[in-house]
Amino acid sequence: MSQTMSVVCGVSNRHLHLSQEDLELLFGAGASLTVMRDLGQPGQYACEEQVNLIGPKNTLRNVRVLGPVRRQTQVEVSLTDSFTLGIKPPLRDSGDLAASATLILEGPAGRLDLSEGVILAKRHVHFHPDDASILGIKDKDIIKVAIEGERGLVFDNVLARVHESYALEFHVDTDEANAAMLKTGDQVIISVK
Amino acid sequence: MSQTMSVVCGVSNRHLHLSQEDLELLFGAGASLTVMRDLGQPGQYACEEQVNLIGPKNTLRNVRVLGPVRRQTQVEVSLTDSFTLGIKPPLRDSGDLAASATLILEGPAGRLDLSEGVILAKRHVHFHPDDASILGIKDKDIIKVAIEGERGLVFDNVLARVHESYALEFHVDTDEANAAMLKTGDQVIISVK
Repeated sequence: MSQTMSVVCGVSNRHLHLSQEDLELLFGAGASLTVMRDLGQPGQYACEEQVNLIGPKNTLRNVRVLGPVRRQTQVEVSLTDSFTLGIKPPLRDSGDLAASATLILEGPAGRLDLSEGVILAKRHVHFHPDDASILGIKDKDIIKVAIEGERGLVFDNVLARVHESYALEFHVDTDEANAAMLKTGDQVIISVK
Repeated sequence: MSQTMSVVCGVSNRHLHLSQEDLELLFGAGASLTVMRDLGQPGQYACEEQVNLIGPKNTLRNVRVLGPVRRQTQVEVSLTDSFTLGIKPPLRDSGDLAASATLILEGPAGRLDLSEGVILAKRHVHFHPDDASILGIKDKDIIKVAIEGERGLVFDNVLARVHESYALEFHVDTDEANAAMLKTGDQVIISVK
């Protein structure tokens, strides 16, 4: 039998996560991140810090850093952005960065040549285990998400991520949001076969 | 019973159609369009002529004119483009331009203040009547289009356009193409009901 649940949507604009080492290369020795505002996922926040992404074709300026710092630097762009930059990032789950795309990052204190870490993020739903259990979903399951409205559509191949630290939220990038005319805060319907 | 058919996809980048009057305002008295290459629809072609779109927030340069000239100038941008430009075009069928968005157009011979004509194009399938009859589709029907692959999805609310002058082709803009990782020439599956 088909099970459904209403979930809030969060649209991710291009952004990056930095390692402490790369943060200091870009913003100076001893630099730390400055919270601008909290995000939908507990403990995650948008920072005052911004970086330029320099690709072989063009530069995207003032790209927001998200905190806290991570073990490895990760840059998430849309497919539209990747054409502007002139790079070919793979479609990946967050943290799966081996042999992903490269870029030059530029901050106020320096530049760095990122050898990997640039991806298109796979659309996904964050579940707290309490919400996942209602639908019988486990981590890494593939589900569907339906969007209503003028540009209504059903996303297949949506990754379910289940963890104690997560709040229930559907994440897409700006291409996916614009294709469906979705905005952060909109409600969508997730369904499990 | 569900009916399906495989159709080729054409991705529309931002572009514009010009009236003869506006063509001459932008490119000079007596100007005519120069064919660069033919498009999927019979009689339609991309032109050598390009125009700058000047919005309240930013300018998009070198936007391609499509020919032949039309009764009224029409500019088709993606939702991503509309954020860049700083305008709010409605989602419309081609030709339905009353009270749509405005922009300044700039060509080599002059500028013009477009009082209406800027839209987000509704995704649609062009059918020759011979193809439409196989699926029992008539002009203005609403159908679904399924995309396979890593970013597979099903577009609802796809407009069917049926006319003697059309060739079978599914048209989306770059946001929709990028959300589904579609390219011009890819095959998609249309389904009725």
